[in-house]
Amino acid sequence: MDLVYIYRDLVHLFNSFFRNNSGELNLVGKVLSIFIVFIVIKVLLRVLNVLINKAVKRRKNSKFAVDSRKLNTGAAVLKNVIKYILYFIGIMIVLDIFGVNTTSIIATAGIGGLAISFGAQSLVKDIITGFFILFEDQFSVGDYVKIADLEGVVEEMGIRVTKIRDFTGELHIIPNGNISLVTNKSRGPMSSYVDVRIAYEEDTDRAIKVIQEVCDRIKSSNDSILEGPSVLGITDLGDSGINIKVIAKTKPMEQWALERQIRKEIKKAFDEEKIQIAYPKFIIQDKKA
Amino acid sequence: MDLVYIYRDLVHLFNSFFRNNSGELNLVGKVLSIFIVFIVIKVLLRVLNVLINKAVKRRKNSKFAVDSRKLNTGAAVLKNVIKYILYFIGIMIVLDIFGVNTTSIIATAGIGGLAISFGAQSLVKDIITGFFILFEDQFSVGDYVKIADLEGVVEEMGIRVTKIRDFTGELHIIPNGNISLVTNKSRGPMSSYVDVRIAYEEDTDRAIKVIQEVCDRIKSSNDSILEGPSVLGITDLGDSGINIKVIAKTKPMEQWALERQIRKEIKKAFDEEKIQIAYPKFIIQDKKA
Amino acid sequence: MDLVYIYRDLVHLFNSFFRNNSGELNLVGKVLSIFIVFIVIKVLLRVLNVLINKAVKRRKNSKFAVDSRKLNTGAAVLKNVIKYILYFIGIMIVLDIFGVNTTSIIATAGIGGLAISFGAQSLVKDIITGFFILFEDQFSVGDYVKIADLEGVVEEMGIRVTKIRDFTGELHIIPNGNISLVTNKSRGPMSSYVDVRIAYEEDTDRAIKVIQEVCDRIKSSNDSILEGPSVLGITDLGDSGINIKVIAKTKPMEQWALERQIRKEIKKAFDEEKIQIAYPKFIIQDKKA
Amino acid sequence: MDLVYIYRDLVHLFNSFFRNNSGELNLVGKVLSIFIVFIVIKVLLRVLNVLINKAVKRRKNSKFAVDSRKLNTGAAVLKNVIKYILYFIGIMIVLDIFGVNTTSIIATAGIGGLAISFGAQSLVKDIITGFFILFEDQFSVGDYVKIADLEGVVEEMGIRVTKIRDFTGELHIIPNGNISLVTNKSRGPMSSYVDVRIAYEEDTDRAIKVIQEVCDRIKSSNDSILEGPSVLGITDLGDSGINIKVIAKTKPMEQWALERQIRKEIKKAFDEEKIQIAYPKFIIQDKKA
Amino acid sequence: MDLVYIYRDLVHLFNSFFRNNSGELNLVGKVLSIFIVFIVIKVLLRVLNVLINKAVKRRKNSKFAVDSRKLNTGAAVLKNVIKYILYFIGIMIVLDIFGVNTTSIIATAGIGGLAISFGAQSLVKDIITGFFILFEDQFSVGDYVKIADLEGVVEEMGIRVTKIRDFTGELHIIPNGNISLVTNKSRGPMSSYVDVRIAYEEDTDRAIKVIQEVCDRIKSSNDSILEGPSVLGITDLGDSGINIKVIAKTKPMEQWALERQIRKEIKKAFDEEKIQIAYPKFIIQDKKA
Amino acid sequence: MDLVYIYRDLVHLFNSFFRNNSGELNLVGKVLSIFIVFIVIKVLLRVLNVLINKAVKRRKNSKFAVDSRKLNTGAAVLKNVIKYILYFIGIMIVLDIFGVNTTSIIATAGIGGLAISFGAQSLVKDIITGFFILFEDQFSVGDYVKIADLEGVVEEMGIRVTKIRDFTGELHIIPNGNISLVTNKSRGPMSSYVDVRIAYEEDTDRAIKVIQEVCDRIKSSNDSILEGPSVLGITDLGDSGINIKVIAKTKPMEQWALERQIRKEIKKAFDEEKIQIAYPKFIIQDKKA
Amino acid sequence: MDLVYIYRDLVHLFNSFFRNNSGELNLVGKVLSIFIVFIVIKVLLRVLNVLINKAVKRRKNSKFAVDSRKLNTGAAVLKNVIKYILYFIGIMIVLDIFGVNTTSIIATAGIGGLAISFGAQSLVKDIITGFFILFEDQFSVGDYVKIADLEGVVEEMGIRVTKIRDFTGELHIIPNGNISLVTNKSRGPMSSYVDVRIAYEEDTDRAIKVIQEVCDRIKSSNDSILEGPSVLGITDLGDSGINIKVIAKTKPMEQWALERQIRKEIKKAFDEEKIQIAYPKFIIQDKKA
Repeated sequence: MDLVYIYRDLVHLFNSFFRNNSGELNLVGKVLSIFIVFIVIKVLLRVLNVLINKAVKRRKNSKFAVDSRKLNTGAAVLKNVIKYILYFIGIMIVLDIFGVNTTSIIATAGIGGLAISFGAQSLVKDIITGFFILFEDQFSVGDYVKIADLEGVVEEMGIRVTKIRDFTGELHIIPNGNISLVTNKSRGPMSSYVDVRIAYEEDTDRAIKVIQEVCDRIKSSNDSILEGPSVLGITDLGDSGINIKVIAKTKPMEQWALERQIRKEIKKAFDEEKIQIAYPKFIIQDKKA
Repeated sequence: MDLVYIYRDLVHLFNSFFRNNSGELNLVGKVLSIFIVFIVIKVLLRVLNVLINKAVKRRKNSKFAVDSRKLNTGAAVLKNVIKYILYFIGIMIVLDIFGVNTTSIIATAGIGGLAISFGAQSLVKDIITGFFILFEDQFSVGDYVKIADLEGVVEEMGIRVTKIRDFTGELHIIPNGNISLVTNKSRGPMSSYVDVRIAYEEDTDRAIKVIQEVCDRIKSSNDSILEGPSVLGITDLGDSGINIKVIAKTKPMEQWALERQIRKEIKKAFDEEKIQIAYPKFIIQDKKA
Repeated sequence: MDLVYIYRDLVHLFNSFFRNNSGELNLVGKVLSIFIVFIVIKVLLRVLNVLINKAVKRRKNSKFAVDSRKLNTGAAVLKNVIKYILYFIGIMIVLDIFGVNTTSIIATAGIGGLAISFGAQSLVKDIITGFFILFEDQFSVGDYVKIADLEGVVEEMGIRVTKIRDFTGELHIIPNGNISLVTNKSRGPMSSYVDVRIAYEEDTDRAIKVIQEVCDRIKSSNDSILEGPSVLGITDLGDSGINIKVIAKTKPMEQWALERQIRKEIKKAFDEEKIQIAYPKFIIQDKKA
Repeated sequence: MDLVYIYRDLVHLFNSFFRNNSGELNLVGKVLSIFIVFIVIKVLLRVLNVLINKAVKRRKNSKFAVDSRKLNTGAAVLKNVIKYILYFIGIMIVLDIFGVNTTSIIATAGIGGLAISFGAQSLVKDIITGFFILFEDQFSVGDYVKIADLEGVVEEMGIRVTKIRDFTGELHIIPNGNISLVTNKSRGPMSSYVDVRIAYEEDTDRAIKVIQEVCDRIKSSNDSILEGPSVLGITDLGDSGINIKVIAKTKPMEQWALERQIRKEIKKAFDEEKIQIAYPKFIIQDKKA
Repeated sequence: MDLVYIYRDLVHLFNSFFRNNSGELNLVGKVLSIFIVFIVIKVLLRVLNVLINKAVKRRKNSKFAVDSRKLNTGAAVLKNVIKYILYFIGIMIVLDIFGVNTTSIIATAGIGGLAISFGAQSLVKDIITGFFILFEDQFSVGDYVKIADLEGVVEEMGIRVTKIRDFTGELHIIPNGNISLVTNKSRGPMSSYVDVRIAYEEDTDRAIKVIQEVCDRIKSSNDSILEGPSVLGITDLGDSGINIKVIAKTKPMEQWALERQIRKEIKKAFDEEKIQIAYPKFIIQDKKA
Repeated sequence: MDLVYIYRDLVHLFNSFFRNNSGELNLVGKVLSIFIVFIVIKVLLRVLNVLINKAVKRRKNSKFAVDSRKLNTGAAVLKNVIKYILYFIGIMIVLDIFGVNTTSIIATAGIGGLAISFGAQSLVKDIITGFFILFEDQFSVGDYVKIADLEGVVEEMGIRVTKIRDFTGELHIIPNGNISLVTNKSRGPMSSYVDVRIAYEEDTDRAIKVIQEVCDRIKSSNDSILEGPSVLGITDLGDSGINIKVIAKTKPMEQWALERQIRKEIKKAFDEEKIQIAYPKFIIQDKKA
Repeated sequence: MDLVYIYRDLVHLFNSFFRNNSGELNLVGKVLSIFIVFIVIKVLLRVLNVLINKAVKRRKNSKFAVDSRKLNTGAAVLKNVIKYILYFIGIMIVLDIFGVNTTSIIATAGIGGLAISFGAQSLVKDIITGFFILFEDQFSVGDYVKIADLEGVVEEMGIRVTKIRDFTGELHIIPNGNISLVTNKSRGPMSSYVDVRIAYEEDTDRAIKVIQEVCDRIKSSNDSILEGPSVLGITDLGDSGINIKVIAKTKPMEQWALERQIRKEIKKAFDEEKIQIAYPKFIIQDKKA
């Protein structure tokens, strides 16, 4: 029981230095508190900087392609932001210790912070969406994709933007938050579609037979074909001709080349077989007498 | 009544160690509190981790198709997020115990959290909508659907995205939150529609009769037909011809093949019956004298 | 007056067990409080489960078409959500009893809840709009309606989605919140409109007379006609012909069949009367000498 | 002065029953408070129900067309909502009396309420806009209006939706909140516009004279004309002809009939006067030698 | 110093009636407070009603065109709303006096109020924008303006909506909040533009000379012309002809009449001078031998 | 030390008048406080009015074109708004002094204020954007700009709206908040572009030579040309002809006049050199035998 | 131990001047506090001004192009804003010291601040996006880019806006917040595409050979070509001809010149080889006998 009282005396002695009668901190206690607050902040800053540096290092070998110059700049910015936030919190705590009502200051800062966070929400959205694109493996570098009306080969997947290179060589830079519907053209076999439009006067069956022969010839000579090509059938009875569709499955990225080849071969076969293409036709009607 | 006093003495003794005169915790009590807080957090983390692991296991055999690599990554991320949140709460409680006013810190964190939750709301929407699509059985894997101008066969229904494979082989990845209007083309019989446009000079009744005969012939030879095909009637008196529509009901996914067959047969029948298709017609008007 | 003192003594005795000198609950009181809190929660959960089960039963015979499998799943989900919310509240109250400042925990949960409620607002909107559609009787199952560019027969009106079946057999699933402008084509008589375009050379009065005779003939032979058909007049002096409009009122869903019938009869009458349709006309102008 | 002391004694006696030494309510006082709270709520519910019933009665004879079945359903729903809100408030007050911290419960309910109020805001907007449409007398039942690309005769103006019947007989149901730009075609005289396109070879002055004579003839024979019709002038020098515009003012809803009449008469006059309509003209150019 | 003590005795006596020992109001004091609260509210309502009535009177002679029936209805609605708000505040204060915790009630009311204020924000926007349109004098009654794709003469500028009458007689009612881009066609001289398209074979210089002569003739005979008309030059080398543009400045609202006059005169002059209009031209190419 | 006691006696005496025993203000003190509050408000209003008047004076000579009538109206409105806000705050403080809980009043006012501030945010955006347009010198009065699909000469740059006058004389009034993408056509030399389309049969090299000679001739005769004109090359192999583009740089606003001049000169040169323009060409194909 | 008591006496003496018995500040203490508050604010303003001036100086030599006049204006505005905010906070603290409840004032200011921060969020977004464009090096001054449907050479990258100069000389000013999808046409080789359309009658193989020879000739004579040009193949079987595509890779900005060169050379080669371009072809169909 003695220990208890000794302990309580010590506590009392301690308090008599730093607290006044009503138990609040006196000036000495307050000044000491300030020192403690800022030492804690300094230590925290050190720890956070070390953590950031480690994260930067880990990142450099990671999947996301971020060159080291950017990483260093980014880390420096982040450190600065954290420093200012911590100092702001520290000053608020010190003012609070001195009994200054900080409500109005925090309200002012809060409105400013709200304005910034409204402006920054598209940034947050970019990063979250970017994470999910990677996590769900929606596409990888080298895939041919279509995003937001832009098509091309994925060249770089970053934490905030994705870069796509067009066939024209143009580089499209898309913030990840703008990516919603993704069409990936490198997952599984792709289809080649060729439409041939012949005149109504032609014998449809013969035309289909000719086209099918061309298809069979191409099939045996082209390694990138996985299925077909074959005639699908008549897909339109148009104003001046009949539309016949040919379809094939190829390895990704080979579909356009195959389409060009099929077109060339059909054209040649039609020339030989004298099958006429569907030119627009008109009838000059007699005027009513 | 004695018991009461003994009990109260014990409580008093207990308090004299950990609380000062005014009933607040003294330093010893505070330090002890911190230990308790972090032990509680540790225990909570264990429990939550176990719960997450169990959820992951259950998920692996569930309806949602999520491969195990993703599940593990997802679970790891979730555990990390929970860990940081719990530690943040713990630190706040400890600071509170030591009498530090945490309002400004919580306000700072709150604004950050608000920014994140704004950015994350489309994620939440994805998951809620995904749940309802499954719950209401709007479509299942294998259905042919149309969503947000994209058509194809549903290949995968995930918690955040739905994957649809186009006839061209392209893979469309649609965040569930972007799915509002869904058109399901695999529920019940589908219709085949064929438009035939004949010249005004033709005898309409005879043309309809010829088409109807074709329809009857096709009906007897095609198993996927559920109803029709039959001539609906004249749906347009156009600039240069009359539009006759043929309609039929088929098993899902068979409608396009039937349409191609009907077109081919009608073309052949018209050739035999010498019914002319509606080529554009013009009259060369006399100039006014 | 004695009663008063006895009563007060009893209260005092009670308090001496569960409260300390300053009137706060002591440990025994706190532990007891926890038990009471969780017993109350248990009882509440029972009561709510019974209420939900009763609501489910009532629902099964109600106007909204919800199959029982979905209802059971939905009820189970709802029970789970309520259970977690009540336990969360219980834990908060217990922590509060033990003097832990729960502000930071509630703030954390609040931001999470806000994110969820933002994501869930379209769900709430679906249900509110669904209620009003039913309440205002905007359409019923079997009506032919047009909603958000989709047309069809209403097949199912649910609490969250409305299902419409197209003439093509396609099933459109529309979240109620997406329903704003509704066009109901099954309330009252519908109109049939047929446009006939004749050449400028024709005698307009005679053409109108011929068409009107056709209209009168049809009227006497078709039971679904409520008014007309009759010639409205010349609605356009076009580039190459005059547009004459015929109008009629029919029972709902019969308008298209009547239009097809009118077109067929007019075509036949024009053939007999040798009235020429308005083919495009051109003048070959003399070059300036 | 005695009265004062007697009064104070009475107060003291009263307090000694229901309050403990520190002036807080004791158990008896608390239980009594609960009874008072729920009696007050019961009374309030009665009063509100009576008020709602009176409002319903008044409404039945009011300008807004709401059939009584809907009114009764609506009133029942409103009473239910009020009942649940009042009971919720009552439970919160009781918990507060017993010293339970209700912050977490209110926060939970608040977030739910916020989600509902977000989802309900379009409902509120519908009602406010509906009120202003009535208050500003933007249109009345029977007016022919154009709202949000839909045209028709106003058939019903409700508190939440406006119903418009199209000329085709279709019934458009428009939530009031979707009504922003309103075009009212029943306020004041409407204009008839007819465009006549004649060839460049015609004598413009003579053509205008012929048209004007037709206009004068129509004017004397048609009672719904308020002004004109008269020739406005040449409004376009087109590719193949000159555009002459005729304009007239009529009683509302008579403009289309007048336009059809003017077209018919001009056509007849041109036939008699042999004025040629502007058929497209082309020149066959000589190839360069 | 005596005065001080007498004063303090009086205060003491006063307090002993209405306050208990701990300085809080006793029952008598509370009841009295309620009376005071509601008397204050009554007085406030009177004062506000008088103020509203005066505002209504002032408004009747003001610039905004508001007929008195609407003003009276509006004032009555406003008075009702203020009455309910004040009574609600009064009840809250009374409950507060009796020690009932009103947080939950205010929170409930606040969420309702929030929902209303969300729905009402377009109303507020209408009024603020309406004020600025008047204040900045963007247009006045009688001006010919174009707002949100609607054109017409401003007929009424109200506090919430602007009414525009089209040339067709249709009345467009536009909420002020929907007015952003305003095009005012009654401020300063307007331009007339006429495009004449002549054949490539014509002598351009001669054609321009003829047109300019027409312009000069018109200028001397038309009082509403402020500048020009004169030939601007060749604005297009088209497929089949050359485009010559004529421009003039007129008094507002006279531009269209002038355009029609210019067109008529140029047509006549071209007939006399035998300058051919640019009919479409084609070359029939020789087939490759 | 005496001074201290005298000072404390004075303070005590002061307090004994205005405060009761528990240190709160007594009735006299409260009444006095009210006076002080309203005197402070009066003084504040005076000061603010003076400040506003000075700002108005400064504004009158500033860059922003605001006529003095508007300034005076605006200042009067602002003074009124400030007056009402200050009085509202004053009343709240007085009620607070009398111990009335003002939470419910402030909450009511706050929701109203929120509704207003939501509606007013576009006003705030207008002013902020307007400031940046001026600050960044995006355009000045007299510049020819294109904003939000409207083109014209800037006539007035105000604090809330920008006014642009079209070539047609129309005055476009654009709220600054609607200005995002600005195209300024008065900064630096502008380009003239002329497209000439010649037939495939022409000798391309000779045609280019002729056009280049025209360009050189124009260059020597026109002072507003800064660079070119010169032939850029063949920019299209079209259906019926070859497109040759001519380009030049001129002083701002001179580009259209130069384009008209180039067109006229090329037309003349082609007439002389007999180079044929690209009329549409067709081939009449032989029918298949 | 003595030191402790002396210290405590000093503290006591200090307090007896500035605090009253209950430990609150007395009038002297309050007045002193006000002085301290405003001295602190003054010092803070000095420090912040110095910091801003240093930032301005650093900025002048930085990557962002900001001319010094703007910087000075901007700094002055920023200093003013900070001054007003600090004074507002100071006044709030002083009022708080005097026991005035500042809640209502802060709420009023807060709503105003909220309105401003809503209006200012697009400003914040501009700056954040601008930072990321620079940080991620999306484009640099001199690059040819396409942003938001505007193309041109980047002329200036500012903190709020990016300026792009069009080929026509027009200067587009784009707020950074409006920049989402960026297409950079200066990173890596660009493609030239030329489409040639030949008649069906031509020998496709020969045509391709001729075009390929032209390509080879151009390649050897043009230094800016990196790859190709070569014939890609037949990309369309059109209505009247076959489409052959030629492709090449060039240095950035050289692609258009190369396209013009290829077109010119192919035209010349076709003239020599007599390969006919694909003029539209028609068949005049026999009327049905």
